[in-house]
Amino acid sequence: MSDSDIIATPPHEPEAVHAEDRIHDEEDRLLPAFVREVLDAVADGDDEAARELVAELHPADIADLIELAPGDERGDLIEALAGIVDADVYAELNEYVREDVIDEMEPQQVADLAAQLDTDDAVALIEDLEQDEQLAVLRAMEPDDRAAVEEALTYGEETAGRLMQRDLIAVPEHWKVGQVIDYLRSSDELATDFWEVFVVSPNHHPVGTCKLSTILRSPRSTLVSEIMARKQTLIPVDLDQEEVALKFQKYALISAAVVDSSGRLVGMITVDDIVHIIQEEAGEDVLLLSGAGEGDINEPLVDTYKARVRWLAANLLTALVASMVISQFENAIERMAVLAALMPIVAGVGGNAGTQTLAVTVRAIATNQLTGSNHWRAVWREIRVAMMNGLTIAVLIGIGVTLVLGSGTLGTVIALAMLTNIVVAGLAGVLVPLGLEKAGADPAVASSVFVTMVTDSMGFLVFLGLATAAGL
Amino acid sequence: MSDSDIIATPPHEPEAVHAEDRIHDEEDRLLPAFVREVLDAVADGDDEAARELVAELHPADIADLIELAPGDERGDLIEALAGIVDADVYAELNEYVREDVIDEMEPQQVADLAAQLDTDDAVALIEDLEQDEQLAVLRAMEPDDRAAVEEALTYGEETAGRLMQRDLIAVPEHWKVGQVIDYLRSSDELATDFWEVFVVSPNHHPVGTCKLSTILRSPRSTLVSEIMARKQTLIPVDLDQEEVALKFQKYALISAAVVDSSGRLVGMITVDDIVHIIQEEAGEDVLLLSGAGEGDINEPLVDTYKARVRWLAANLLTALVASMVISQFENAIERMAVLAALMPIVAGVGGNAGTQTLAVTVRAIATNQLTGSNHWRAVWREIRVAMMNGLTIAVLIGIGVTLVLGSGTLGTVIALAMLTNIVVAGLAGVLVPLGLEKAGADPAVASSVFVTMVTDSMGFLVFLGLATAAGL
Repeated sequence: MSDSDIIATPPHEPEAVHAEDRIHDEEDRLLPAFVREVLDAVADGDDEAARELVAELHPADIADLIELAPGDERGDLIEALAGIVDADVYAELNEYVREDVIDEMEPQQVADLAAQLDTDDAVALIEDLEQDEQLAVLRAMEPDDRAAVEEALTYGEETAGRLMQRDLIAVPEHWKVGQVIDYLRSSDELATDFWEVFVVSPNHHPVGTCKLSTILRSPRSTLVSEIMARKQTLIPVDLDQEEVALKFQKYALISAAVVDSSGRLVGMITVDDIVHIIQEEAGEDVLLLSGAGEGDINEPLVDTYKARVRWLAANLLTALVASMVISQFENAIERMAVLAALMPIVAGVGGNAGTQTLAVTVRAIATNQLTGSNHWRAVWREIRVAMMNGLTIAVLIGIGVTLVLGSGTLGTVIALAMLTNIVVAGLAGVLVPLGLEKAGADPAVASSVFVTMVTDSMGFLVFLGLATAAGL
Repeated sequence: MSDSDIIATPPHEPEAVHAEDRIHDEEDRLLPAFVREVLDAVADGDDEAARELVAELHPADIADLIELAPGDERGDLIEALAGIVDADVYAELNEYVREDVIDEMEPQQVADLAAQLDTDDAVALIEDLEQDEQLAVLRAMEPDDRAAVEEALTYGEETAGRLMQRDLIAVPEHWKVGQVIDYLRSSDELATDFWEVFVVSPNHHPVGTCKLSTILRSPRSTLVSEIMARKQTLIPVDLDQEEVALKFQKYALISAAVVDSSGRLVGMITVDDIVHIIQEEAGEDVLLLSGAGEGDINEPLVDTYKARVRWLAANLLTALVASMVISQFENAIERMAVLAALMPIVAGVGGNAGTQTLAVTVRAIATNQLTGSNHWRAVWREIRVAMMNGLTIAVLIGIGVTLVLGSGTLGTVIALAMLTNIVVAGLAGVLVPLGLEKAGADPAVASSVFVTMVTDSMGFLVFLGLATAAGL
């Protein structure tokens, strides 16, 4: 390529592209001004202007637009954009917003939308409807589509069966590349979005896969059996979606065959349906550890309240335990109220050290880095980190208290209490989630209540206990 | 398909498959017994047995095996598995473990490994080496590979330029499908792993893409320009990897073209290189919020210590602020030590409420659900949730304290303090991360220190202040 080529096209910085884009900011979020412009057009009854603004947007962006619109403006927006808000937009929509919108529709409308989607997206569209609404929608669907969706609904929620598409390309291993290509060109009815061809035995068991790039690069006379990869990751149809996501990630899959309990190929999962699950599952630990439930900002307020208040009530109970520990030392506190001022430091920093260990352990378990092979090593690692942290913080607070309050005894007491509590916090932070995991529970769900109780109670107990023992 | 087909293959449950697999557990993790068996064989000097055990494993599993081995057994393990531990295994290895292992190798060995990898994996292999080691490895590489890696290294860390592969298929739009297929079959030198063909203008600007499935399903005489998708997501070469990941997720991309500042096609990123980034970025919020730094269990101990102790020291400072608040009320506490026992309840539950709001807000910002268009709505939502939570918990603790301690005044004081602190916590939990985001900082990094300081100090201040005002 010559220099003149470059000159022919005036160079422009990506920044410039973004600056010209009055729709997105640099992180692909819709600009508030753009959202306002569309909503104002709708409010003014100027549907045509709104439609023009939105016409060129990707379905994912139109879904964002609907989510960003205030709840009471969504109905009018969708009405104004009739035809533009298509099935793909609904497939991209946040599930709570989608439920709201779908609830307002006639069963026939929902059925028409579902008919335009892959089975997995159609299932997502109607799986959360009330039983009777779901039935009404299914009745309004074409028999073929209905059968596919009904079959998918027989699989448990959040399993491979719900995620998979039934449209896939499966060929016998005695075919040649030329036959495969001719077959693909032969019919418009075949799947359009696929990245691998599955090779099956006569009784429809997967025996290998062929990447499309391999097929394209091989002469027509090549046997499929010569170029297929015989090793492949099979997904049992009842596998939980979190484990499906881990398989895709671990083995860098683009698509994978789903098999039923007798090992027959029943569907295919593609990576684009998995990326949002990977993100959700990885992101949910912070929500679970804090007791924020689903943590979706579109969740109905009452559900959010219920999820969070349950957790706060549990926390209230553990706080009461810590409170009872303190009440055992009321005499000491009455004699020396500075103890009351200092004790939250020991509990608080300990709680933080526990949370750190907890976060690391929960993530390591979730990403399969921490297994039965290395858990004692992880515990030993946390003990050493806790010792180092504990000594550092203990020295800092010990010297500080000694200097400011002029009491070496008090300084020593708080330093010892701090060291103890940070080490206890480290132990609890790693052992509690490992124990819950071993017991078959999700370590992210209940760990932090236990760990906080330990760090609070121990913090108060050790500090006030040592202070009493030291005759303070 | 007839029933006899099914009978011909005895049905077997996926569970049965797992039970027979003595290598993996049901979540694809290597079984501890298997890891031990391999390591024992290596320790006994029986390399042949170890190699046989490992021979059939996927590179990702061999990488797991090396990570799960204790640090002092890794060297012998890798030596025993020479030839089996290939470049793909190194590409899959945890970065800290890889650094350890690479550090022990000669530059020529590293160069040989890098030569077998795609540019992005080769870059990952050597980007963390010390300057002089990196130079030694580069010098040992073939000129072509070296140039590609050196070019990649000119882009910033964690940018698209580091992630992209240079091997891609680009064709002019006037070609026919038959020409594309012939071109792909013409040379063994072309890329093997690709899912789309990029269509470029004469000056190498992307003008469209063609999915391989579309090419395969179209007659040879079809013009590429007729079947290509003209809308495509272009990735600027200097885009941060987190934003690359968000683009892949939002637009469900399988691969995407990377363009330089003049808009020319310079590389391609595929989704399999992105899934681990999506997972890392989504999972890091819990680590950042807890101040656990990288939070990798393979990180050198000293780095872990440094990251965490810095955070604990910051926490110590905020705890001191809370402590000073308490010390203003020492007289009240000396008169009535039960105040000291009750005050951590107000601070603790408030802290929890703040953490919940914080987690939800940080995730909503990270997933681009919370933008300038809906942030006030989110704040208002959190205020309402906080009011509901605050009233519930305030009633519970108010009645409890009144009954147990027999003081309606104390019950009222703690109920009011609890309500106030939970509402303040909710406000801080949503306003602090939104403010940091607005200021261009990562809301996950510093939010929790601020929020904890607010909930602790406010909890003590309101409770002890009200108690004093009530004459307790």
